Amino acid sequence: MKAPHQESVLSRAARILEAFSPEEPALTVSEIARRTGLHVATASRLVGELVAHGFLGRDDDRRVRIGVRLWELAVRASPALSLRDAAMPFMEGVHDVVGHHVQLGVLDGDEVLFLERLSAPNAVVNYTRIAGRLSLYASSSGLVLLAHGPADLKERLLAGPLTAHTPKTPATPTRLRAALAEVRQRGYAYCPGYVHEEALGVAAPVRGADGQVVAALSVIVPNDAGAQAVVPVVRTAARGVSRALGAPTGREGAGVCTGV
Amino acid sequence: MKAPHQESVLSRAARILEAFSPEEPALTVSEIARRTGLHVATASRLVGELVAHGFLGRDDDRRVRIGVRLWELAVRASPALSLRDAAMPFMEGVHDVVGHHVQLGVLDGDEVLFLERLSAPNAVVNYTRIAGRLSLYASSSGLVLLAHGPADLKERLLAGPLTAHTPKTPATPTRLRAALAEVRQRGYAYCPGYVHEEALGVAAPVRGADGQVVAALSVIVPNDAGAQAVVPVVRTAARGVSRALGAPTGREGAGVCTGV
Repeated sequence: MKAPHQESVLSRAARILEAFSPEEPALTVSEIARRTGLHVATASRLVGELVAHGFLGRDDDRRVRIGVRLWELAVRASPALSLRDAAMPFMEGVHDVVGHHVQLGVLDGDEVLFLERLSAPNAVVNYTRIAGRLSLYASSSGLVLLAHGPADLKERLLAGPLTAHTPKTPATPTRLRAALAEVRQRGYAYCPGYVHEEALGVAAPVRGADGQVVAALSVIVPNDAGAQAVVPVVRTAARGVSRALGAPTGREGAGVCTGV
Repeated sequence: MKAPHQESVLSRAARILEAFSPEEPALTVSEIARRTGLHVATASRLVGELVAHGFLGRDDDRRVRIGVRLWELAVRASPALSLRDAAMPFMEGVHDVVGHHVQLGVLDGDEVLFLERLSAPNAVVNYTRIAGRLSLYASSSGLVLLAHGPADLKERLLAGPLTAHTPKTPATPTRLRAALAEVRQRGYAYCPGYVHEEALGVAAPVRGADGQVVAALSVIVPNDAGAQAVVPVVRTAARGVSRALGAPTGREGAGVCTGV
């Protein structure tokens, strides 16, 4: 039995898995020990066990990576996968026509977690990636999820602190309240230069079978006048995904003609 | 300290994660206990810990699912993701033109593990899904991976037992040897009715920067004469992905004109 003050094996294993990132997908055991604060011997033993279960894999050069078995277990029965599967044909259609980046994001904690992203070569700059995160108040996806999210989350974010990525980021309580009201009234988020000066995000809500917002479908395009044309495309695709998920029908926010 | 005969916490946690499947993505704690053979109290405690780390999530009705945090950790630093990212634009192109199913599979153990699948509505029947598996000797992807795989794996599979999905499956050592030789000579696998009578798979190898085969790109189309036209499409796309991964250039197998 472990002593009450001792961190659990699962907690230490979780810290090891968290040590890997897109920038550092391969680590030595001593790097893992350093990043997790575990003794090298403890890290080495746990890494060995995680490798034995396929949760981590070892390179030829003895560096360690996330294992394909962990990926398989996480993906094959994930609720994220059925949402992503329902959205994919619509996202591909948008990507064919609009290009740049098309994304599917869900609310997780105080952030947007991106389940999928389709990107064109030479697309406009964008910070996100699959399994990447963005703040709820700066990104178009985030504003959609926050506008339809729990009241206590809204109040907590409005209580700050909010970090401005650019001068356009709605990073004051007054501006954020106005942005959220606009999203609810319009039925979509339109965010010129909120995350990056050169990029513009448009996001619309995806609803599940119970009518609740479960995700945001967004495109990131260059921050210019052409972006307005993207709005009905994104809204239509998001409604299509919602219908595929069995969401109740009926209009929301402004119509396509008046809303653009 | 755990007694030597006792199964480790990580091993029991792995068994819990393995209890979930695409068919049963949500389980109660007692179902988990039954499927894993763990005592309900042990299962309940471990599920609680896994939920606390976000590796599992609890529904409103107290059923448990794979958690979005596990998905995030597994995906964001996964070697599978960079391969899938490199392949995606090529797969989308093939999917636009060919329709049906376009898949990316890697060798894992004695099976093909599918990292990605793009499917059209009303596509021909297909058994695979993302994070799904197929046997190496029956599927076009599997034959490509096996033909270029380790010699001991080949010998082990040739030693049997091999299960015929249809009368066309190369499920005898003689037929499997011939099929593998053909894949190496042609540079692709062409599999009419091997997995399902109505479906035909075409797969070509994807090579990494060191020239080794790291994946198979495949399409599944109806099992009819039109399938021949798909061969150069699949081979070209697989070569494109290989180049994107930095594979050495140079011809392999028969050329497009003679190979079709």
